[in-house]
Amino acid sequence: EEVTKCLELKTPLSDHGLQKYTLKTPKGTKDYGPHQMAIREQVFDKIIRCFKRHGAETIDTPVFELKENLTGKYGEDSKLIYDLADQGGEVLSLRYDLTVPFARYLAMNKITSFKRYQIAKVYRRDNPATSRGKYREFYQCDFDIAGQHDLMLPDVECVKIAVEILSDLNLGDFVVKVNHRKILDKIFEVCGVSSDNFRSVCSSVDKLGQCSWEEVKAEMIEEKGLSPKVAERIGIYIQRNGGLDLIEELLNNEDLAGNGTGREGLEAMKLFFKYCEIYGISDKIYFDLSLARGLDYYTGVIYEAALTKLSHRTHFANGELHAVGSVAGGGRYDNLVGMFDSKQRNVPCVGISIGIERIFSIIEARAQVEHEKLRTTETEVFVASAQKKMTEERMKICKELWDAGIKTEQSYKVNPKLLDQLHYCEERFIPLAIIIGETELQKGVVKLRYVMSREEIEIERNKLVQEIGAHIRTFSSIKQT
Amino acid sequence: EEVTKCLELKTPLSDHGLQKYTLKTPKGTKDYGPHQMAIREQVFDKIIRCFKRHGAETIDTPVFELKENLTGKYGEDSKLIYDLADQGGEVLSLRYDLTVPFARYLAMNKITSFKRYQIAKVYRRDNPATSRGKYREFYQCDFDIAGQHDLMLPDVECVKIAVEILSDLNLGDFVVKVNHRKILDKIFEVCGVSSDNFRSVCSSVDKLGQCSWEEVKAEMIEEKGLSPKVAERIGIYIQRNGGLDLIEELLNNEDLAGNGTGREGLEAMKLFFKYCEIYGISDKIYFDLSLARGLDYYTGVIYEAALTKLSHRTHFANGELHAVGSVAGGGRYDNLVGMFDSKQRNVPCVGISIGIERIFSIIEARAQVEHEKLRTTETEVFVASAQKKMTEERMKICKELWDAGIKTEQSYKVNPKLLDQLHYCEERFIPLAIIIGETELQKGVVKLRYVMSREEIEIERNKLVQEIGAHIRTFSSIKQT
Repeated sequence: EEVTKCLELKTPLSDHGLQKYTLKTPKGTKDYGPHQMAIREQVFDKIIRCFKRHGAETIDTPVFELKENLTGKYGEDSKLIYDLADQGGEVLSLRYDLTVPFARYLAMNKITSFKRYQIAKVYRRDNPATSRGKYREFYQCDFDIAGQHDLMLPDVECVKIAVEILSDLNLGDFVVKVNHRKILDKIFEVCGVSSDNFRSVCSSVDKLGQCSWEEVKAEMIEEKGLSPKVAERIGIYIQRNGGLDLIEELLNNEDLAGNGTGREGLEAMKLFFKYCEIYGISDKIYFDLSLARGLDYYTGVIYEAALTKLSHRTHFANGELHAVGSVAGGGRYDNLVGMFDSKQRNVPCVGISIGIERIFSIIEARAQVEHEKLRTTETEVFVASAQKKMTEERMKICKELWDAGIKTEQSYKVNPKLLDQLHYCEERFIPLAIIIGETELQKGVVKLRYVMSREEIEIERNKLVQEIGAHIRTFSSIKQT
Repeated sequence: EEVTKCLELKTPLSDHGLQKYTLKTPKGTKDYGPHQMAIREQVFDKIIRCFKRHGAETIDTPVFELKENLTGKYGEDSKLIYDLADQGGEVLSLRYDLTVPFARYLAMNKITSFKRYQIAKVYRRDNPATSRGKYREFYQCDFDIAGQHDLMLPDVECVKIAVEILSDLNLGDFVVKVNHRKILDKIFEVCGVSSDNFRSVCSSVDKLGQCSWEEVKAEMIEEKGLSPKVAERIGIYIQRNGGLDLIEELLNNEDLAGNGTGREGLEAMKLFFKYCEIYGISDKIYFDLSLARGLDYYTGVIYEAALTKLSHRTHFANGELHAVGSVAGGGRYDNLVGMFDSKQRNVPCVGISIGIERIFSIIEARAQVEHEKLRTTETEVFVASAQKKMTEERMKICKELWDAGIKTEQSYKVNPKLLDQLHYCEERFIPLAIIIGETELQKGVVKLRYVMSREEIEIERNKLVQEIGAHIRTFSSIKQT
């Protein structure tokens, strides 16, 4: 009542005393309910465990950055950046990814060697397609290795990490497409593209997969100003893919491998494939000359993991796998940190980003199909009463259990019905219930009920905490085996 | 080089080819480095464990909301809300707290009973005072109980949770100040404040503590339009504090406790103190009539935890405890969900919010004083080589260890120096190092080095994974005891 009064007072616009609210989250965003959070925690846990297995530290950066720090990093995608309103003070934008803030962090703190992971939300004013996990607010799980290191050693580890995570999540078959910006640029050069048009043509190539080659070619000619002949020549190259054999073939191509950067890129790819062999992941890797990656800042190897067949347990309503698309991607960006440094001192970097929203949508679909029973709380004991006026005794027991670190709940009613209390336990998969009653308390005992089997035993009231503790240890050792 | 070219292309404004960047995070925000993240994870872990111990589920909501959903909820603080720029589409603001999005979530999903926690960042365009943990972007750790429950049962549990968390964090002595909005409003009424001025006077009272009574009185008279006499009368009440005795005294005050709401509030406080006694927390609780809480939406009991003495291990440079201020707060808000419902159906709620940034600043200060050695990675084994040309063998061993779930690192140099590798281990507190060398490999063994003691033993190359696994289990069982 007071609040309503106050609302009238503070917002004269809504002078009916009752504002009409649009009850929704902003376009392209969603709430996560408890069930989705339980899935999210499991997935994050696996990802973080992998990042830690590879020795990464973690950092966190603000959700917004000075707008100037984001400008000129994302090419054509810059239009998708969310800006904050000018309310006086600095000009700010929401972060578009975690890579540019990471580079800003390295430059600002003059760090020259760092292996870090970061899991946080990023923001893109894109056309959302929420049914296939494409949002305007979404998580990125990034792992990056910064520092002056030897060729391909950190790069291949990033791909190994993607393979470990995707295997561990058991989503189904996948491949990792790999390419190299130096090879791509050499192809553009050889085909007759002028060097100031490289990045722009690159972002056209990036659309292959979502668009047909005919569409991409049309864009190159009509929007990027290439001649049909140049576009045709590019097409011949970028429709090639394969393995080490293709690399060897291109190394024999005088045009590409004759001089500097083209040969450099191809030799790097050869080493990349050799290291993949040692790490036991070469069956997942293939060399795809059409892989371009949208962002401007890549300078070396680039890669993208895509599912090819979902695990047999997963079925989408529409049966579409294609809809899910790529689930991880990244590459080398050696000049980004230098862009932030007043003396352009560079710190070479390479990283991988796991596209977690798409993975969530797959796992959620699977959980739905399997009617998976996922607990959303961890409560171990429910303290119930069989009669009225037991509130204080219930509270005393709860206090003892909480203070002993045991996860405990009770009803917030003074006189709850026993049936309601037991129903709550069964619904929530709470394994144990303590039931207190007048008679038992006088005898110095309480009932301990195994919720699932509905068995009941008596335990001593003043040994309650020890007894429950022992039961919980038994439960969790059974669960672990 | 390509990227720089490209930057020139994309940002014609910075046509010197080198943009001058302001290398900073936005005003009132900060990065968390690995050391701070390690502390943060420990603190969050304790808080989440407590929330789960009380049976809470968790949700997540978007970082921004439709602006209309935040309007009219925060009283005078509404001016601190961050708005997003109008880039076409919806009018959006960054969330100011987690409570209003929670109420929107309940109304939108027609949920009438829910116990949830949420840990996420909120945004306020306030004057930052980062040295004492006051930021424009900061975490809130909220626990709320929604539903039609019996008097004070959920309310006291929220305070119990605050006490458990603050005790567990071992920050030093603290008290929880408690008051009730119905008592405050009755005091205002009795002193002669008109009811449409209650919330505005309330936010003046809220400044007591930071400001002296004389300053607050001046604001009441000059800005809120109270007569000096009315302000004086309020002053007599709100400077009172105590325990159950004060409640009893006020219950005998005909003016306050004669009719409806004043008596209701006082009786509720009496029950609150009784339940605190049962939960064993009454020594922390005191009734403080000056506690007002800034936000408009509270309707019942309100509380705030403040440190009174830091633990002996903590010393601020300036010795100021006062600077830290309140570390947790909350209360009952029974009408907020109804504001979002087209039929004004209410879901009564009560909650507690842990002010985590202030807690971080205390724990960081303590860690600094104690020169605490906090690991920022969890790496268990480092794979080193004593000679050149061992890259492939190192990679093979890393692969085996990673695939067995063992946290492993190696140098990203093809020919790293042994001393550099061992130095890295000691610096990072990595407990084990494997050292490979030509001679040993020919004998089918590798060296296992205990980094801290610098002892070395030989183990069989082809039993390496099992041996390391056994050593790690020994280490972690020692750490646990």
